[in-house]
Amino acid sequence: MDKQQLMECHERIKPFIHNTPVLTSRLIDGMAGARLFFKCENFQRMGAFKMRGAANAIMQLTESQKQNGVVTHSSGNFAQALSLAAQSMGVKAHIVMPRNAPQVKKDAVRGYGGNIIECEPTLEAREQESKEIQKKYGATFIHPSNDDAVILGQGTACKELLELHPDLDHVITPVGGGGLIAGTALAAAYFGNGCKTIGGEPFEGDDAYRSLLSGTIEGNITTNTIADGLKTQLGDRNFPIIQKHVERIIRVTEEEIVSAMRLVWERLKIICEPSSAVALAAVLREKETFKDKKIGVIISGGNVDLVHLPFQKPL
Amino acid sequence: MDKQQLMECHERIKPFIHNTPVLTSRLIDGMAGARLFFKCENFQRMGAFKMRGAANAIMQLTESQKQNGVVTHSSGNFAQALSLAAQSMGVKAHIVMPRNAPQVKKDAVRGYGGNIIECEPTLEAREQESKEIQKKYGATFIHPSNDDAVILGQGTACKELLELHPDLDHVITPVGGGGLIAGTALAAAYFGNGCKTIGGEPFEGDDAYRSLLSGTIEGNITTNTIADGLKTQLGDRNFPIIQKHVERIIRVTEEEIVSAMRLVWERLKIICEPSSAVALAAVLREKETFKDKKIGVIISGGNVDLVHLPFQKPL
Repeated sequence: MDKQQLMECHERIKPFIHNTPVLTSRLIDGMAGARLFFKCENFQRMGAFKMRGAANAIMQLTESQKQNGVVTHSSGNFAQALSLAAQSMGVKAHIVMPRNAPQVKKDAVRGYGGNIIECEPTLEAREQESKEIQKKYGATFIHPSNDDAVILGQGTACKELLELHPDLDHVITPVGGGGLIAGTALAAAYFGNGCKTIGGEPFEGDDAYRSLLSGTIEGNITTNTIADGLKTQLGDRNFPIIQKHVERIIRVTEEEIVSAMRLVWERLKIICEPSSAVALAAVLREKETFKDKKIGVIISGGNVDLVHLPFQKPL
Repeated sequence: MDKQQLMECHERIKPFIHNTPVLTSRLIDGMAGARLFFKCENFQRMGAFKMRGAANAIMQLTESQKQNGVVTHSSGNFAQALSLAAQSMGVKAHIVMPRNAPQVKKDAVRGYGGNIIECEPTLEAREQESKEIQKKYGATFIHPSNDDAVILGQGTACKELLELHPDLDHVITPVGGGGLIAGTALAAAYFGNGCKTIGGEPFEGDDAYRSLLSGTIEGNITTNTIADGLKTQLGDRNFPIIQKHVERIIRVTEEEIVSAMRLVWERLKIICEPSSAVALAAVLREKETFKDKKIGVIISGGNVDLVHLPFQKPL
């Protein structure tokens, strides 16, 4: 995936995405001892960067593929993204979701026109169900993170950020399935000026950290994290990009995640997901690394359940 | 207060305030059956529009007045605004606050360099204490809402909104002490193109609604509302402006306030105060009035206590 492809991808999806705003906070800069530029993908359509990759993946299909629809398995933001992107382009989206997925997530997918197929809450069941949909409708399977078109699409957020701030020293993203950080790392390499990509990951789900150490894709040992978007693992399409272009992964505690999330809510006055706060938590954990640097922070999404928030007691 | 004065005020305070962004939401537009433009004063410095009026009021003082400092009584956003505006201009700010004000509010005022003087939690005590500070230091008293310089300053938010969207049919603000709506009404009259100002007020604190009916300043009968910024009452400087320029006040229930606040959080992905949500609640309550109109909605502030949120149960 070269620079030209990333540029073409961006032009292609522009009609379907927002060029999201970049926010700053003097107070957070003061706390970090650095200058932070928050790329607010929580303001993206459907509330997360996933819209970018989903739009690009569908637009890369042939006309006959589009007529047969697309299918994915996800209970998170990619389910909503693929549904909305498909709806925007007149394509049918089938979403395989575990039976026990929260009602609010099912409603969101339906609200964007997605066709939900429920399955047992196991990886095997959802892969099996996806295959049946592919057979039944001739639908094209689109993976939420391990897909070249998806990776390129996710990279356009960092490209936009660098268009505004070309001299960032670092760009930091949370690491879940690896699509966002792989796309970001490509964009930083192609459009940055020595801009290095760093990942943030919970200790309670540090598959990417360990994968970079061992040189092979590792699974998660635990996924007992509030950052529910980061429980997935890397794939064979994005891992080589991450190995080549990502400088390192910084792990953070659950307490650090909640504290960073609270900072974003209280100081930036925006809603971000726990997964998004992992990137800021990484910067605050390693202040000496980032001292006086200019740092792009990708706020990956803002879809949270307001009824169950982690702000239990006064600071 | 004429058009020229409002323009001069805006130029004067520009170095001390943000020109805050204007957000839109297709989903909320669809629900309202109108086009809404949210002027996001939650992104203002210290988190609320009050920064505008405070900055203007201090800048209008003579050099010798500035040397003697300023004083106000407030436990809300104006306390923070006057502290930060004063600090930005090298002026001392004395803030009279009730002893039982939340610690988080006291900390915020101190964080902006304000000098807190605690008093008993009664109106008499705080007025008495303010007078003593005026005597002791020669400090100038600045009222949070019933002050010409403050009213003009608050009007600059609407002026900025009309610079971006000159053809608004309505602009809607919450009504507390009356400073914001009076300034907004002046800006709409001077810079709008037939733009009418409407207020939103809780049923549980409808002094402005009743004041407009009776033609005299009425007190609140109850203030049992979540919109804690709106418990104050109108004053003799802003009431005549409101009588002349505000078309009407729409009252909303507590349930409507929480529901509108939740919409702003979930769909705009921004943090707003309950008081701010009153303006949107008014639009949603009277959809027939606003059908197909272009409406400016002032999101007045974003300082909330994340530990005590009203989102108790799933929708």
